[in-house]
Amino acid sequence: MERTAIYPGSFDPVTNGHVDIVERGLKIFDKIIVAILRNPAKEALFTVEERKEMIETSLNKYSNVEIDVFEGLLVDYAKKRNAGTILRGMRAVSEFEYEFQLALMNRKLNREIQTVFLMTGFRWIFTSSSIIKEAASFGGNINGMVPPLVSLKLKEKFGCITSADE
Amino acid sequence: MERTAIYPGSFDPVTNGHVDIVERGLKIFDKIIVAILRNPAKEALFTVEERKEMIETSLNKYSNVEIDVFEGLLVDYAKKRNAGTILRGMRAVSEFEYEFQLALMNRKLNREIQTVFLMTGFRWIFTSSSIIKEAASFGGNINGMVPPLVSLKLKEKFGCITSADE
Amino acid sequence: MERTAIYPGSFDPVTNGHVDIVERGLKIFDKIIVAILRNPAKEALFTVEERKEMIETSLNKYSNVEIDVFEGLLVDYAKKRNAGTILRGMRAVSEFEYEFQLALMNRKLNREIQTVFLMTGFRWIFTSSSIIKEAASFGGNINGMVPPLVSLKLKEKFGCITSADE
Amino acid sequence: MERTAIYPGSFDPVTNGHVDIVERGLKIFDKIIVAILRNPAKEALFTVEERKEMIETSLNKYSNVEIDVFEGLLVDYAKKRNAGTILRGMRAVSEFEYEFQLALMNRKLNREIQTVFLMTGFRWIFTSSSIIKEAASFGGNINGMVPPLVSLKLKEKFGCITSADE
Amino acid sequence: MERTAIYPGSFDPVTNGHVDIVERGLKIFDKIIVAILRNPAKEALFTVEERKEMIETSLNKYSNVEIDVFEGLLVDYAKKRNAGTILRGMRAVSEFEYEFQLALMNRKLNREIQTVFLMTGFRWIFTSSSIIKEAASFGGNINGMVPPLVSLKLKEKFGCITSADE
Amino acid sequence: MERTAIYPGSFDPVTNGHVDIVERGLKIFDKIIVAILRNPAKEALFTVEERKEMIETSLNKYSNVEIDVFEGLLVDYAKKRNAGTILRGMRAVSEFEYEFQLALMNRKLNREIQTVFLMTGFRWIFTSSSIIKEAASFGGNINGMVPPLVSLKLKEKFGCITSADE
Repeated sequence: MERTAIYPGSFDPVTNGHVDIVERGLKIFDKIIVAILRNPAKEALFTVEERKEMIETSLNKYSNVEIDVFEGLLVDYAKKRNAGTILRGMRAVSEFEYEFQLALMNRKLNREIQTVFLMTGFRWIFTSSSIIKEAASFGGNINGMVPPLVSLKLKEKFGCITSADE
Repeated sequence: MERTAIYPGSFDPVTNGHVDIVERGLKIFDKIIVAILRNPAKEALFTVEERKEMIETSLNKYSNVEIDVFEGLLVDYAKKRNAGTILRGMRAVSEFEYEFQLALMNRKLNREIQTVFLMTGFRWIFTSSSIIKEAASFGGNINGMVPPLVSLKLKEKFGCITSADE
Repeated sequence: MERTAIYPGSFDPVTNGHVDIVERGLKIFDKIIVAILRNPAKEALFTVEERKEMIETSLNKYSNVEIDVFEGLLVDYAKKRNAGTILRGMRAVSEFEYEFQLALMNRKLNREIQTVFLMTGFRWIFTSSSIIKEAASFGGNINGMVPPLVSLKLKEKFGCITSADE
Repeated sequence: MERTAIYPGSFDPVTNGHVDIVERGLKIFDKIIVAILRNPAKEALFTVEERKEMIETSLNKYSNVEIDVFEGLLVDYAKKRNAGTILRGMRAVSEFEYEFQLALMNRKLNREIQTVFLMTGFRWIFTSSSIIKEAASFGGNINGMVPPLVSLKLKEKFGCITSADE
Repeated sequence: MERTAIYPGSFDPVTNGHVDIVERGLKIFDKIIVAILRNPAKEALFTVEERKEMIETSLNKYSNVEIDVFEGLLVDYAKKRNAGTILRGMRAVSEFEYEFQLALMNRKLNREIQTVFLMTGFRWIFTSSSIIKEAASFGGNINGMVPPLVSLKLKEKFGCITSADE
Repeated sequence: MERTAIYPGSFDPVTNGHVDIVERGLKIFDKIIVAILRNPAKEALFTVEERKEMIETSLNKYSNVEIDVFEGLLVDYAKKRNAGTILRGMRAVSEFEYEFQLALMNRKLNREIQTVFLMTGFRWIFTSSSIIKEAASFGGNINGMVPPLVSLKLKEKFGCITSADE
């Protein structure tokens, strides 16, 4: 059997923690579809297209990783893509309960699809997209927490080149 | 003594989990007042009037349940209604701490009124109003998680009739 | 309808937090049965008889409180006593999840019986039986955390009269 | 690539929740080794041999499931069996943090082996081995929470045949 | 060595819980700088200047407390002020994990600066700025939870003088 | 003012995480007393004397660190030593609540003494004494998680020299 997993998220922007989860997932799944949710209701820093480009650049060495954009219900998208598994990374206890409720809801909506949790690599436990955006907005040096292109794009957005980059 | 409990909330919209808490509460209290908070500061999907109608339809078989709308401080409303108890449902660990702080605050504001927690029925653990709205907005089939009228209203709001309903 | 609630526990020994829960419960229930679990598998500091005496002394002003001892399944005992409700106090987040699992198990064993949670009074949040026993064993002054008789009995057990008592 | 996962535990005794995790795991892995830890330091209700027999009976319809016993370090056992993945079920927030620490420790001990978490089926959230043993010891009817053979063995252990079985 | 700690926050408005943390901190540090974050991205009830005035009035008896306003990265501000320590108060489990992630991020941004946690005084566990603002907005009596000037300013903001104050 | 902090614990055995907390504490306090609790009620792997020797060897480069053994109530010991502060390290959410209750109890027993929490260094989050003992007992290589002498002593205890040490 060929196993495909959907790795859904906002990826606003992709972090080294996300990259790490994809790489860990590839040890278990034959193919991973990184699926960016197009959600008009949620304000984002980067457009869906910018986010897609940043993920593609960060993961282009893996031939069995596809980057896609979806709208609507995740389980419907997973079914359409013939993927029986939703892949989620976990970093912290506070995230766990929300993930749990979400996984229960998705199972309720479609019994065929299950959720698999992988643990983020130790170094990435504190690298959430939002905490990185906050640090970058204040001029913090976020090299090493995100792929190089993301680091560059964040500096463009916030109009600051830190001394460490010169 | 006659015991009246206030069951406060946004109920935007009422779910089967809420209905379940009212039914459990009726085993302990003589009367339950479902009290919708009119909160201009918080954006809602349904108007207070729509929410009231949906709750009334869902609970109209119980003569000792009253649906009301209140503004201002919950403990003041409870006192005005001669209710010594605030009834709250609990589903998850993450909710517990907020409920705890709220109950402490309410006790501080009025020592006469206490908070009673009932556990949501097992099947309703994942049916929060917000997760149901999110699923419905993407066309998910939320029948069985909310009363029939709510299911209908949600589909009207989001302009989608799923195949399961035809 | 007459409402009876079972308040089960080890009560090894009873604390002011337990007394507080009974007093709060009496605002909702017509009768409360404080039920000491006789559990040969669990080592205790006080015998069941000592524990019973200490609770009786602490709650003897309430005519609608009964102290009893039970063995076996809690829901069977509740049924035998015609009590539809199990009363539990909650102090902390860490307790919540265990209480939740226990309540689900009890509901599974007997659908007729439900669990009601009351919040311990603010001052009693840190007064667990075990933390009090530990403090008392090292000679800590635990007056004000337990009823007077319990304070006395703890000092007898640990063979220490602290300077504050002289 | 062939993917083998180790599903380690005490299984004292196996529950329907464990069986559920194996069945979910089989959708992702080609082979699952249920590995009972022989731990002389931890007291158990059933012998390792009894536990092995109960698991075998419960899972004998799956040709790609193997039941084994191991001693020593889990990651060493996984390496010896050529299994790159440790499979764990999760039910509750309180378990999550311990699992997290364990997975970090195992990764530290052997970087090649990773841990995958699956969510227990909704119905099994409250069926821990210990809570089931406690209920059974008091004569509670635990049919439907454990495989039939386990139900029988538990009743033998605790010397009680409940009325529901006659 | 002289030890200076930065106590950062929004202080919108300062509560008795904040005052308590400063007083506890003064037992450990020679100087405390209460640092209000000027954050244009976050909507506030009071202006930075109003917040500064309220803190100054509440803490003017301590000569070794300075009130300041900062923008940008906290660790950069701490370095500029020659403060090696960030002081944080903790009240609840739910806050802990966020604080943990924040402290890890700050350590990553500047290894020289560490975070010290003090526990809020027992009476202040439920006095968060946001819960107090909510209570005040509904006309709740929040005397005793905030310094007198803050109580006055909140009543001005929400245009209500409660009966208890007359 | 001279500031002394007590760092209490079982230290059975000391880990690099403990050493890290002491080193962080020395940036804030003039003197740290590492205080081993002599607790006959709790079974330990190492004797108090062995534990003391291992800590002394690990921290002998710091002249302002003292290793001591105490019995009885921690706050009484702190008072006797003229230490106004109890120092605690924190690694995980699950520890936080217990620490919180303990700190409240200690404050109740002696209002003059407060608890200060430092966050364990990132690398030591998973190095609890108990998880290290478990790994060592199964022959796991725990070099780098504990001071060299502790590593040696653990191997002696469990009678195993791992291949990595030869």
